[in-house]
Amino acid sequence: MQSEQWEHNQLRIPGPTPVPPRVTRASTRPMVNHRGAQFREMYKRVTARLRDVFRTQGEVVLITGSGTAAMEAAVVEMVQPGDKVLVLVGGKFGERWAEINRAFGAEVVEWRYDWRGGAEPAELKERLAADPDIVAVFATHNESSTGVLNDIEGLSRARDLAGGRHRALLVVDSVSGLGGAPLPMDAWGVDVVVTGSQKCLMVPPGLSFAALGEAALARLEQVQTGRYYLDLRAYRKAGAAGESPYTPAVSLVFALEEALAMLAEEGLENAWARHRLMRVQVRAGV
Amino acid sequence: MQSEQWEHNQLRIPGPTPVPPRVTRASTRPMVNHRGAQFREMYKRVTARLRDVFRTQGEVVLITGSGTAAMEAAVVEMVQPGDKVLVLVGGKFGERWAEINRAFGAEVVEWRYDWRGGAEPAELKERLAADPDIVAVFATHNESSTGVLNDIEGLSRARDLAGGRHRALLVVDSVSGLGGAPLPMDAWGVDVVVTGSQKCLMVPPGLSFAALGEAALARLEQVQTGRYYLDLRAYRKAGAAGESPYTPAVSLVFALEEALAMLAEEGLENAWARHRLMRVQVRAGV
Repeated sequence: MQSEQWEHNQLRIPGPTPVPPRVTRASTRPMVNHRGAQFREMYKRVTARLRDVFRTQGEVVLITGSGTAAMEAAVVEMVQPGDKVLVLVGGKFGERWAEINRAFGAEVVEWRYDWRGGAEPAELKERLAADPDIVAVFATHNESSTGVLNDIEGLSRARDLAGGRHRALLVVDSVSGLGGAPLPMDAWGVDVVVTGSQKCLMVPPGLSFAALGEAALARLEQVQTGRYYLDLRAYRKAGAAGESPYTPAVSLVFALEEALAMLAEEGLENAWARHRLMRVQVRAGV
Repeated sequence: MQSEQWEHNQLRIPGPTPVPPRVTRASTRPMVNHRGAQFREMYKRVTARLRDVFRTQGEVVLITGSGTAAMEAAVVEMVQPGDKVLVLVGGKFGERWAEINRAFGAEVVEWRYDWRGGAEPAELKERLAADPDIVAVFATHNESSTGVLNDIEGLSRARDLAGGRHRALLVVDSVSGLGGAPLPMDAWGVDVVVTGSQKCLMVPPGLSFAALGEAALARLEQVQTGRYYLDLRAYRKAGAAGESPYTPAVSLVFALEEALAMLAEEGLENAWARHRLMRVQVRAGV
């Protein structure tokens, strides 16, 4: 078992992050029936708390899968084969948005911005105004591969100002951002945000989340893409009853409830401030 | 936390099953880098042990997701839109095979056998002989919704005897079977077997597995279906280096390693005998 090796890990990667002992302990609760009353009540509490973290009145769905599963869910729910999408590529995870979109038949326009900085909102406005067929914009909040935090608020405003015959949806990967940096999706007008359990949310990997605002919820009912495991219509229906359509990672949901309680105790604004302080400390030290 | 409620659960459902204390304890190891040497070595040990459980010289891929994710992987890897498939439907999980195939554009022929018993191998031979366009047969090993165990060995032989211009692939859902009832896939000529972590494997839910024999491995390189998170080509490539293409559920892989050690200590044949004995006991008692 090499237990000593396991005990002395120092994790200095974007994720998985170290799991707080309280969270680990919660994950060890005896297994329960995922269609029983106890689990259903917990599931409702957890999704309500997640809405606070996403700062949305929309819906949050919990997917058993890596963050990439939630990214794929966002693509298959928002884009139909042949649709034109604009993908902001500033590193490995921007490239992933482009790859997933291509895998499902979208026409991808890549905007490769300078990897040393974020995508410029003014340029987004120009690009959308010049290409009114674009139905969705895929962006990365914190690009883990470069450490660049994009100005999602600015990009969302620029999208609104682009005009044209329709408003392109803004879909944001915040796998390494949500909980650590501000992303109040309703206030900023972001349509879809996806994240994972294993970074700022302090839970082991294996759960991912997609939060959908009003326009996104309307869109997913219209899209005809072939999908099943990541068909969020099934998650919405089951979620209304406090369930997941397929057996969820129960022990990780136990962990998540505890981690969300910790975040609520600290206060989300304080968690953002803690991450900002760590950023300053790291930059001062290297 | 309602800890007392959580402590006194009696689980008498097909799964999730109660998790042995050894397995729970293993899941609490400190988090590690999923792309580091420690995890890679463990991942290789785990996939080698899984090959023993599937009784295959083929490949086993580990997916972070519910059993349904592995079922979908089998469909998108083996079937192209427009392909004709035969689905054996004897309960809810047979219906799921049909639903997933339809979602991805297959032409589904449903064989609704008597839900009180298994599908008759002789009838499979007739159906395949009469319909040589069928490229794949989807079956359920243990149909959790009815408690019926199908004769997979007989069905596989019947498929071989059907003749015709090609041999249809046999794809088996053994989410509630593998580890509890015999399914030596190579010896029986089964092409794909999928299962989940939370039943006979005694691990919390959140991992699922697809085992692929030679014909299936050839097929997945040919299929053109749009797929990304469940594209098993990426899993094979990363797996060769002891990695998962996307962040895996690390704590559940810790748990899995311990559960597979327990199964190896008991001996797989003894685990099958234990399940048979429990079946007799339950039937005698009700």
